[in-house]
Amino acid sequence: MAESRLTLYYWGGQPGRGEPIRLILEETGTPYDQVLPVPSVGKDGSLDFGAVTSFLEDGTTFAVPILVDKDGPDGHPITLSQLPNIMLYLGKKLGLAGHGAEEYRANQLFLTLCDLQVEAHDTHHPLNVMKYYEEQKEAAYEKAMQFRQTRAPKFLKFFEKVLSTSSGPYFLGEQFTYPDLMLFHVVDGLIFAFPKLMEKQRPSHPEVFMLYDLVRVRSRIVKYMKSDRRAPFGQGLYRHYPELDDE
Amino acid sequence: MAESRLTLYYWGGQPGRGEPIRLILEETGTPYDQVLPVPSVGKDGSLDFGAVTSFLEDGTTFAVPILVDKDGPDGHPITLSQLPNIMLYLGKKLGLAGHGAEEYRANQLFLTLCDLQVEAHDTHHPLNVMKYYEEQKEAAYEKAMQFRQTRAPKFLKFFEKVLSTSSGPYFLGEQFTYPDLMLFHVVDGLIFAFPKLMEKQRPSHPEVFMLYDLVRVRSRIVKYMKSDRRAPFGQGLYRHYPELDDE
Repeated sequence: MAESRLTLYYWGGQPGRGEPIRLILEETGTPYDQVLPVPSVGKDGSLDFGAVTSFLEDGTTFAVPILVDKDGPDGHPITLSQLPNIMLYLGKKLGLAGHGAEEYRANQLFLTLCDLQVEAHDTHHPLNVMKYYEEQKEAAYEKAMQFRQTRAPKFLKFFEKVLSTSSGPYFLGEQFTYPDLMLFHVVDGLIFAFPKLMEKQRPSHPEVFMLYDLVRVRSRIVKYMKSDRRAPFGQGLYRHYPELDDE
Repeated sequence: MAESRLTLYYWGGQPGRGEPIRLILEETGTPYDQVLPVPSVGKDGSLDFGAVTSFLEDGTTFAVPILVDKDGPDGHPITLSQLPNIMLYLGKKLGLAGHGAEEYRANQLFLTLCDLQVEAHDTHHPLNVMKYYEEQKEAAYEKAMQFRQTRAPKFLKFFEKVLSTSSGPYFLGEQFTYPDLMLFHVVDGLIFAFPKLMEKQRPSHPEVFMLYDLVRVRSRIVKYMKSDRRAPFGQGLYRHYPELDDE
Protein backbone atom coordinates (compact mmCIF):
# COMPACT_ATOMS: atom_id res chain seq x y z
CA MET A 1 0.00 0.00 0.00
CA ALA A 2 1.28 3.48 -0.84
CA GLU A 3 2.46 5.66 1.99
CA SER A 4 0.07 8.45 2.95
CA ARG A 5 0.94 11.98 2.00
CA LEU A 6 0.10 13.16 5.53
CA THR A 7 1.84 12.06 8.72
CA LEU A 8 0.79 13.08 12.21
CA TYR A 9 3.37 13.00 14.99
CA TYR A 10 2.06 13.05 18.54
CA TRP A 11 2.62 11.27 21.86
CA GLY A 12 1.11 7.80 21.96
CA GLY A 13 -1.66 6.58 24.24
CA GLN A 14 -3.85 9.66 24.57
CA PRO A 15 -6.12 11.82 22.37
CA GLY A 16 -4.38 15.04 23.45
CA ARG A 17 -3.75 17.95 21.14
CA GLY A 18 -3.48 15.52 18.25
CA GLU A 19 -7.17 14.60 18.44
CA PRO A 20 -8.74 17.50 16.49
CA ILE A 21 -6.28 16.71 13.69
CA ARG A 22 -7.37 13.07 13.63
CA LEU A 23 -11.01 14.15 13.65
CA ILE A 24 -10.72 16.35 10.57
CA LEU A 25 -8.74 13.69 8.71
CA GLU A 26 -11.24 10.98 9.66
CA GLU A 27 -14.28 13.17 8.90
CA THR A 28 -12.98 13.92 5.40
CA GLY A 29 -11.82 10.33 4.74
CA THR A 30 -8.26 11.56 4.26
CA PRO A 31 -5.61 8.82 4.53
CA TYR A 32 -2.86 9.53 7.07
CA ASP A 33 -0.06 7.83 8.93
CA GLN A 34 0.69 8.29 12.59
CA VAL A 35 3.95 8.24 14.46
CA LEU A 36 3.16 8.05 18.16
CA PRO A 37 6.33 7.82 20.24
CA VAL A 38 6.14 7.60 24.01
CA PRO A 39 8.94 9.75 25.50
CA SER A 40 11.34 7.62 27.55
CA VAL A 41 13.96 8.50 30.12
CA GLY A 42 17.49 7.81 28.88
CA LYS A 43 20.42 6.47 30.90
CA ASP A 44 21.56 9.99 31.80
CA GLY A 45 18.08 10.93 33.02
CA SER A 46 17.22 13.08 29.99
CA LEU A 47 14.07 12.51 27.98
CA ASP A 48 14.26 10.65 24.69
CA PHE A 49 11.57 11.88 22.32
CA GLY A 50 12.11 9.13 19.79
CA ALA A 51 10.93 9.83 16.26
CA VAL A 52 10.10 13.50 16.90
CA THR A 53 13.50 14.40 18.36
CA SER A 54 14.83 16.09 15.24
CA PHE A 55 11.73 18.31 14.83
CA LEU A 56 12.10 19.44 18.43
CA GLU A 57 15.84 20.04 18.29
CA ASP A 58 16.42 21.73 14.95
CA GLY A 59 14.06 24.67 15.48
CA THR A 60 11.31 23.29 13.23
CA THR A 61 8.75 23.07 16.02
CA PHE A 62 8.47 23.81 19.73
CA ALA A 63 6.20 20.88 20.55
CA VAL A 64 3.92 18.17 19.18
CA PRO A 65 1.47 17.82 17.45
CA ILE A 66 3.44 17.99 14.22
CA LEU A 67 1.96 17.36 10.79
CA VAL A 68 4.03 16.69 7.69
CA ASP A 69 2.29 17.09 4.35
CA LYS A 70 4.25 15.92 1.33
CA ASP A 71 1.86 17.92 -0.87
CA GLY A 72 2.32 21.32 0.72
CA PRO A 73 1.88 24.79 -0.79
CA ASP A 74 3.51 25.17 -4.23
CA GLY A 75 4.07 21.42 -4.40
CA HIS A 76 6.72 21.42 -1.64
CA PRO A 77 6.51 19.34 1.54
CA ILE A 78 5.54 21.33 4.63
CA THR A 79 6.05 20.65 8.33
CA LEU A 80 3.51 22.31 10.60
CA SER A 81 3.02 22.60 14.32
CA GLN A 82 0.75 24.48 16.74
CA LEU A 83 -2.71 22.96 16.72
CA PRO A 84 -4.59 26.08 15.50
CA ASN A 85 -2.03 26.45 12.70
CA ILE A 86 -2.39 22.83 11.61
CA MET A 87 -6.19 23.07 11.70
CA LEU A 88 -6.22 26.30 9.68
CA TYR A 89 -4.07 24.57 7.09
CA LEU A 90 -6.10 21.36 6.98
CA GLY A 91 -9.40 23.22 7.16
CA LYS A 92 -8.53 25.08 3.99
CA LYS A 93 -6.97 22.10 2.24
CA LEU A 94 -9.90 19.80 3.01
CA GLY A 95 -12.69 22.32 2.44
CA LEU A 96 -13.84 22.72 6.06
CA ALA A 97 -12.69 26.29 6.73
CA GLY A 98 -15.20 28.55 4.99
CA HIS A 99 -14.09 31.29 2.62
CA GLY A 100 -12.99 34.92 2.97
CA ALA A 101 -14.33 36.44 6.18
CA GLU A 102 -15.60 33.01 7.28
CA GLU A 103 -12.02 31.70 7.45
CA TYR A 104 -11.27 34.23 10.16
CA ARG A 105 -14.50 33.48 11.97
CA ALA A 106 -13.66 29.75 11.95
CA ASN A 107 -10.10 30.44 13.15
CA GLN A 108 -11.41 32.74 15.91
CA LEU A 109 -13.87 30.14 17.18
CA PHE A 110 -11.24 27.43 17.05
CA LEU A 111 -8.79 29.57 19.04
CA THR A 112 -11.46 30.25 21.66
CA LEU A 113 -12.13 26.52 21.96
CA CYS A 114 -8.37 26.01 22.39
CA ASP A 115 -8.40 28.53 25.26
CA LEU A 116 -11.14 26.53 26.95
CA GLN A 117 -9.13 23.35 26.39
CA VAL A 118 -6.02 24.90 27.96
CA GLU A 119 -8.00 26.06 31.00
CA ALA A 120 -9.47 22.57 31.37
CA HIS A 121 -5.95 21.12 31.31
CA ASP A 122 -4.67 23.65 33.83
CA THR A 123 -7.23 22.51 36.42
CA HIS A 124 -5.05 19.45 37.10
CA HIS A 125 -1.70 21.16 36.44
CA PRO A 126 -2.04 24.73 37.68
CA LEU A 127 1.53 25.17 38.92
CA ASN A 128 3.94 22.94 37.05
CA VAL A 129 3.32 20.80 33.97
CA MET A 130 6.39 18.69 34.75
CA LYS A 131 5.24 17.68 38.23
CA TYR A 132 2.55 15.13 39.07
CA TYR A 133 -1.01 16.19 39.81
CA GLU A 134 -0.58 14.74 43.29
CA GLU A 135 2.15 17.32 43.94
CA GLN A 136 -0.21 20.23 43.27
CA LYS A 137 -3.56 18.95 44.49
CA GLU A 138 -4.45 21.93 46.66
CA ALA A 139 -3.80 24.43 43.90
CA ALA A 140 -5.67 22.18 41.47
CA TYR A 141 -8.68 22.16 43.75
CA GLU A 142 -8.87 25.96 43.77
CA LYS A 143 -8.18 26.23 40.03
CA ALA A 144 -10.86 23.65 39.27
CA MET A 145 -13.38 25.43 41.47
CA GLN A 146 -12.89 28.65 39.52
CA PHE A 147 -13.05 26.70 36.28
CA ARG A 148 -16.36 25.07 37.24
CA GLN A 149 -17.97 28.16 38.73
CA THR A 150 -16.79 30.89 36.36
CA ARG A 151 -14.68 29.98 33.38
CA ALA A 152 -16.39 26.90 31.92
CA PRO A 153 -19.88 28.49 32.20
CA LYS A 154 -18.56 31.69 30.58
CA PHE A 155 -17.15 29.79 27.61
CA LEU A 156 -20.24 27.60 27.26
CA LYS A 157 -22.51 30.65 27.41
CA PHE A 158 -20.50 32.25 24.61
CA PHE A 159 -20.67 29.19 22.36
CA GLU A 160 -24.40 28.85 23.14
CA LYS A 161 -24.89 32.47 22.05
CA VAL A 162 -22.94 31.95 18.83
CA LEU A 163 -24.94 28.84 17.98
CA SER A 164 -28.33 30.30 18.94
CA THR A 165 -27.75 33.29 16.64
CA SER A 166 -26.35 31.14 13.83
CA SER A 167 -28.50 30.59 10.75
CA GLY A 168 -28.01 26.82 10.98
CA PRO A 169 -27.01 24.08 13.41
CA TYR A 170 -23.29 24.74 12.99
CA PHE A 171 -21.05 27.64 14.04
CA LEU A 172 -21.11 29.03 10.49
CA GLY A 173 -24.78 28.37 9.80
CA GLU A 174 -25.53 25.50 7.42
CA GLN A 175 -21.86 25.08 6.69
CA PHE A 176 -19.94 22.42 8.64
CA THR A 177 -16.42 23.60 9.52
CA TYR A 178 -13.50 22.47 11.67
CA PRO A 179 -14.47 24.43 14.82
CA ASP A 180 -17.61 22.25 14.91
CA LEU A 181 -15.33 19.20 15.20
CA MET A 182 -13.39 20.96 17.95
CA LEU A 183 -16.55 21.77 19.89
CA PHE A 184 -17.43 18.08 19.81
CA HIS A 185 -13.98 17.14 21.05
CA VAL A 186 -13.80 19.72 23.84
CA VAL A 187 -17.31 18.93 25.12
CA ASP A 188 -16.46 15.22 24.95
CA GLY A 189 -13.31 15.85 26.98
CA LEU A 190 -15.19 17.94 29.52
CA ILE A 191 -17.88 15.28 29.91
CA PHE A 192 -15.09 12.79 30.64
CA ALA A 193 -13.27 15.09 33.07
CA PHE A 194 -16.19 16.87 34.73
CA PRO A 195 -19.29 14.66 34.21
CA LYS A 196 -21.28 16.29 37.02
CA LEU A 197 -20.45 19.83 35.94
CA MET A 198 -21.43 19.08 32.36
CA GLU A 199 -24.66 17.38 33.39
CA LYS A 200 -25.58 20.56 35.28
CA GLN A 201 -24.63 22.74 32.31
CA ARG A 202 -26.59 20.71 29.78
CA PRO A 203 -30.10 22.17 30.30
CA SER A 204 -28.96 25.78 29.85
CA HIS A 205 -26.84 25.06 26.76
CA PRO A 206 -29.11 23.11 24.41
CA GLU A 207 -27.44 24.36 21.22
CA VAL A 208 -23.96 23.38 22.41
CA PHE A 209 -25.09 19.86 23.29
CA MET A 210 -27.08 19.62 20.05
CA LEU A 211 -23.95 20.40 18.04
CA TYR A 212 -22.01 17.91 20.16
CA ASP A 213 -24.56 15.25 19.28
CA LEU A 214 -24.69 16.22 15.62
CA VAL A 215 -20.96 15.64 15.28
CA ARG A 216 -20.95 12.56 17.49
CA VAL A 217 -23.37 10.73 15.20
CA ARG A 218 -21.68 11.57 11.89
CA SER A 219 -20.97 8.23 10.26
CA ARG A 220 -17.23 8.62 9.87
CA ILE A 221 -16.87 10.00 13.40
CA VAL A 222 -18.86 7.06 14.80
CA LYS A 223 -16.57 4.63 12.95
CA TYR A 224 -13.47 6.44 14.09
CA MET A 225 -14.51 6.60 17.75
CA LYS A 226 -15.00 2.83 17.72
CA SER A 227 -11.70 2.15 15.95
CA ASP A 228 -8.33 1.37 17.49
CA ARG A 229 -7.01 4.62 16.01
CA ARG A 230 -8.92 6.41 18.77
CA ALA A 231 -7.07 6.48 22.10
CA PRO A 232 -9.31 6.69 25.16
CA PHE A 233 -9.21 9.68 27.51
CA GLY A 234 -7.09 8.93 30.56
CA GLN A 235 -3.98 10.64 31.88
CA GLY A 236 -3.68 13.30 29.17
CA LEU A 237 -5.16 16.74 28.64
CA TYR A 238 -8.58 15.75 29.98
CA ARG A 239 -8.48 13.80 33.24
CA HIS A 240 -11.19 12.66 35.60
CA TYR A 241 -10.39 13.40 39.22
CA PRO A 242 -13.73 13.16 41.10
CA GLU A 243 -12.50 15.65 43.71
CA LEU A 244 -12.16 18.34 41.01
CA ASP A 245 -15.69 17.85 39.65
CA ASP A 246 -18.95 19.31 40.92
CA GLU A 247 -20.64 17.68 43.87
CA MET B 1 -10.29 64.51 9.57
CA ALA B 2 -11.65 61.31 8.08
CA GLU B 3 -12.34 58.44 10.41
CA SER B 4 -9.88 55.56 10.17
CA ARG B 5 -11.00 52.36 8.53
CA LEU B 6 -9.56 50.34 11.41
CA THR B 7 -10.66 50.54 15.03
CA LEU B 8 -9.00 48.65 17.89
CA TYR B 9 -11.04 47.94 21.01
CA TYR B 10 -9.10 47.01 24.11
CA TRP B 11 -9.00 47.83 27.82
CA GLY B 12 -7.44 51.21 28.55
CA GLY B 13 -4.26 51.87 30.54
CA GLN B 14 -2.13 48.85 29.64
CA PRO B 15 -0.35 47.40 26.59
CA GLY B 16 -1.93 43.96 27.11
CA ARG B 17 -3.04 41.74 24.26
CA GLY B 18 -3.77 44.84 22.20
CA GLU B 19 -0.10 45.76 21.95
CA PRO B 20 1.03 43.50 19.06
CA ILE B 21 -1.88 44.94 17.05
CA ARG B 22 -0.72 48.50 17.75
CA LEU B 23 2.83 47.53 16.82
CA ILE B 24 1.91 46.21 13.38
CA LEU B 25 -0.31 49.22 12.67
CA GLU B 26 2.40 51.63 13.82
CA GLU B 27 5.19 49.80 11.98
CA THR B 28 3.26 49.97 8.71
CA GLY B 29 2.09 53.56 9.23
CA THR B 30 -1.54 52.41 9.10
CA PRO B 31 -4.03 54.93 10.55
CA TYR B 32 -6.27 53.51 13.28
CA ASP B 33 -8.64 54.61 15.99
CA GLN B 34 -8.72 53.19 19.47
CA VAL B 35 -11.59 52.65 21.85
CA LEU B 36 -10.12 51.91 25.26
CA PRO B 37 -12.86 51.51 27.87
CA VAL B 38 -12.00 50.75 31.47
CA PRO B 39 -14.52 48.21 32.83
CA SER B 40 -16.44 49.67 35.76
CA VAL B 41 -18.57 48.08 38.44
CA GLY B 42 -22.26 48.96 38.11
CA LYS B 43 -24.71 49.65 40.93
CA ASP B 44 -25.76 45.99 41.07
CA GLY B 45 -22.13 44.87 41.33
CA SER B 46 -21.92 43.62 37.76
CA LEU B 47 -19.18 44.76 35.39
CA ASP B 48 -19.94 47.43 32.81
CA PHE B 49 -17.76 46.93 29.75
CA GLY B 50 -18.69 50.23 28.15
CA ALA B 51 -18.16 50.48 24.40
CA VAL B 52 -17.34 46.80 23.91
CA THR B 53 -20.44 45.48 25.66
CA SER B 54 -22.35 44.61 22.51
CA PHE B 55 -19.43 42.66 20.99
CA LEU B 56 -19.18 40.63 24.19
CA GLU B 57 -22.89 39.99 24.57
CA ASP B 58 -24.10 39.20 21.08
CA GLY B 59 -21.75 36.29 20.38
CA THR B 60 -19.43 38.28 18.11
CA THR B 61 -16.41 37.84 20.35
CA PHE B 62 -15.47 36.16 23.61
CA ALA B 63 -13.02 38.84 24.73
CA VAL B 64 -10.93 41.85 23.72
CA PRO B 65 -8.84 42.70 21.74
CA ILE B 66 -11.37 43.32 18.99
CA LEU B 67 -10.52 44.86 15.64
CA VAL B 68 -13.12 46.27 13.25
CA ASP B 69 -12.02 46.79 9.65
CA LYS B 70 -14.48 48.66 7.45
CA ASP B 71 -12.58 47.35 4.42
CA GLY B 72 -12.83 43.64 5.15
CA PRO B 73 -12.76 40.71 2.72
CA ASP B 74 -14.99 41.17 -0.34
CA GLY B 75 -15.48 44.84 0.58
CA HIS B 76 -17.57 44.06 3.67
CA PRO B 77 -16.72 45.24 7.20
CA ILE B 78 -15.26 42.55 9.42
CA THR B 79 -15.09 42.23 13.20
CA LEU B 80 -12.21 40.11 14.45
CA SER B 81 -11.06 38.88 17.83
CA GLN B 82 -8.43 36.48 19.20
CA LEU B 83 -4.99 38.04 18.95
CA PRO B 84 -3.45 35.37 16.64
CA ASN B 85 -6.47 35.70 14.35
CA ILE B 86 -6.23 39.49 14.19
CA MET B 87 -2.49 39.34 13.52
CA LEU B 88 -2.91 36.73 10.78
CA TYR B 89 -5.45 39.01 9.15
CA LEU B 90 -3.40 42.21 9.52
CA GLY B 91 -0.17 40.45 8.62
CA LYS B 92 -1.65 39.43 5.27
CA LYS B 93 -3.43 42.73 4.67
CA LEU B 94 -0.36 44.82 5.46
CA GLY B 95 2.23 42.61 3.76
CA LEU B 96 4.01 41.31 6.87
CA ALA B 97 2.91 37.66 6.79
CA GLY B 98 5.00 36.01 4.09
CA HIS B 99 3.41 33.93 1.33
CA GLY B 100 2.29 30.31 0.92
CA ALA B 101 4.18 28.05 3.33
CA GLU B 102 5.71 31.11 5.01
CA GLU B 103 2.26 32.24 6.19
CA TYR B 104 1.95 29.06 8.24
CA ARG B 105 5.49 29.40 9.54
CA ALA B 106 4.74 32.98 10.67
CA ASN B 107 1.44 31.92 12.26
CA GLN B 108 3.17 29.02 14.05
CA LEU B 109 5.90 31.26 15.48
CA PHE B 110 3.35 33.85 16.54
CA LEU B 111 1.24 31.20 18.32
CA THR B 112 4.33 29.92 20.14
CA LEU B 113 5.13 33.47 21.28
CA CYS B 114 1.52 33.74 22.49
CA ASP B 115 2.02 30.58 24.54
CA LEU B 116 5.08 32.13 26.17
CA GLN B 117 3.07 35.29 26.84
CA VAL B 118 0.25 33.32 28.50
CA GLU B 119 2.72 31.46 30.71
CA ALA B 120 4.33 34.77 31.71
CA HIS B 121 0.88 36.09 32.66
CA ASP B 122 0.03 32.96 34.62
CA THR B 123 3.04 33.45 36.92
CA HIS B 124 1.09 36.17 38.75
CA HIS B 125 -2.35 34.60 38.29
CA PRO B 126 -1.89 30.84 38.47
CA LEU B 127 -5.18 30.01 40.18
CA ASN B 128 -7.85 32.58 39.43
CA VAL B 129 -7.74 35.47 36.97
CA MET B 130 -10.56 37.23 38.82
CA LYS B 131 -8.76 37.33 42.15
CA TYR B 132 -5.92 39.64 43.13
CA TYR B 133 -2.31 38.52 42.90
CA GLU B 134 -2.07 38.99 46.66
CA GLU B 135 -4.70 36.27 47.09
CA GLN B 136 -2.56 33.69 45.29
CA LYS B 137 0.98 34.69 46.14
CA GLU B 138 2.17 31.28 47.29
CA ALA B 139 0.97 29.56 44.13
CA ALA B 140 2.42 32.42 42.09
CA TYR B 141 5.81 31.91 43.70
CA GLU B 142 5.90 28.25 42.68
CA LYS B 143 4.53 28.94 39.20
CA ALA B 144 7.09 31.71 38.66
CA MET B 145 9.92 29.46 39.81
CA GLN B 146 8.99 26.85 37.22
CA PHE B 147 8.62 29.58 34.63
CA ARG B 148 12.11 30.96 35.36
CA GLN B 149 13.86 27.63 35.67
CA THR B 150 12.22 25.60 32.95
CA ARG B 151 9.61 27.20 30.72
CA ALA B 152 11.12 30.60 29.82
CA PRO B 153 14.55 29.07 29.06
CA LYS B 154 12.88 26.38 26.93
CA PHE B 155 11.00 28.96 24.86
CA LEU B 156 14.04 31.23 24.53
CA LYS B 157 16.22 28.30 23.48
CA PHE B 158 13.69 27.44 20.78
CA PHE B 159 13.54 30.99 19.40
CA GLU B 160 17.35 31.20 19.54
CA LYS B 161 17.54 28.00 17.49
CA VAL B 162 15.05 29.30 14.92
CA LEU B 163 16.95 32.56 14.57
CA SER B 164 20.40 30.99 14.48
CA THR B 165 19.34 28.70 11.64
CA SER B 166 17.51 31.45 9.78
CA SER B 167 19.08 32.84 6.59
CA GLY B 168 18.73 36.41 7.89
CA PRO B 169 18.26 38.39 11.08
CA TYR B 170 14.50 37.77 11.19
CA PHE B 171 12.43 34.66 11.84
CA LEU B 172 11.81 34.24 8.12
CA GLY B 173 15.30 35.14 6.95
CA GLU B 174 15.70 38.53 5.30
CA GLN B 175 11.95 39.05 5.41
CA PHE B 176 10.49 41.07 8.29
CA THR B 177 7.16 39.62 9.47
CA TYR B 178 4.71 40.07 12.32
CA PRO B 179 6.19 37.38 14.62
CA ASP B 180 9.34 39.55 14.71
CA LEU B 181 7.23 42.35 16.19
CA MET B 182 5.78 39.90 18.69
CA LEU B 183 9.21 38.69 19.75
CA PHE B 184 10.16 42.30 20.48
CA HIS B 185 7.01 42.80 22.52
CA VAL B 186 7.28 39.58 24.53
CA VAL B 187 10.98 40.09 25.31
CA ASP B 188 10.19 43.70 26.26
CA GLY B 189 7.46 42.50 28.60
CA LEU B 190 9.71 39.84 30.12
CA ILE B 191 12.51 42.37 30.70
CA PHE B 192 9.95 44.52 32.54
CA ALA B 193 8.53 41.63 34.58
CA PHE B 194 11.68 39.55 35.14
CA PRO B 195 14.69 41.89 34.69
CA LYS B 196 17.10 39.63 36.55
CA LEU B 197 16.00 36.48 34.77
CA MET B 198 16.34 38.15 31.38
CA GLU B 199 19.76 39.60 32.21
CA LYS B 200 20.92 36.06 33.01
CA GLN B 201 19.38 34.69 29.80
CA ARG B 202 20.90 37.39 27.57
CA PRO B 203 24.41 35.91 27.04
CA SER B 204 23.12 32.52 25.91
CA HIS B 205 20.50 33.98 23.54
CA PRO B 206 22.35 36.50 21.39
CA GLU B 207 20.10 36.09 18.35
CA VAL B 208 16.92 36.65 20.37
CA PHE B 209 18.27 39.84 21.92
CA MET B 210 19.65 40.97 18.55
CA LEU B 211 16.18 40.67 17.00
CA TYR B 212 14.71 42.46 20.01
CA ASP B 213 17.13 45.33 19.41
CA LEU B 214 16.57 45.35 15.65
CA VAL B 215 12.85 45.90 16.17
CA ARG B 216 13.31 48.29 19.08
CA VAL B 217 15.32 50.73 16.93
CA ARG B 218 13.05 50.73 13.88
CA SER B 219 12.14 54.36 13.34
CA ARG B 220 8.37 54.00 13.55
CA ILE B 221 8.63 51.73 16.59
CA VAL B 222 10.90 54.27 18.32
CA LYS B 223 8.40 57.03 17.63
CA TYR B 224 5.49 54.92 18.81
CA MET B 225 7.18 53.83 22.04
CA LYS B 226 7.75 57.50 22.91
CA SER B 227 4.20 58.54 22.01
CA ASP B 228 1.20 58.80 24.28
CA ARG B 229 -0.46 56.02 22.28
CA ARG B 230 1.87 53.61 24.05
CA ALA B 231 0.66 52.65 27.54
CA PRO B 232 3.42 51.68 29.98
CA PHE B 233 3.66 48.20 31.45
CA GLY B 234 2.15 48.08 34.93
CA GLN B 235 -0.72 46.01 36.28
CA GLY B 236 -1.56 44.14 33.09
CA LEU B 237 -0.27 40.98 31.44
CA TYR B 238 3.36 41.68 32.32
CA ARG B 239 3.91 42.72 35.94
CA HIS B 240 7.01 43.26 37.98
CA TYR B 241 6.87 41.59 41.37
CA PRO B 242 10.50 41.41 42.60
CA GLU B 243 9.71 38.31 44.65
CA LEU B 244 8.82 36.40 41.46
CA ASP B 245 12.05 37.31 39.64
CA ASP B 246 15.44 35.64 39.87
CA GLU B 247 17.70 36.47 42.79
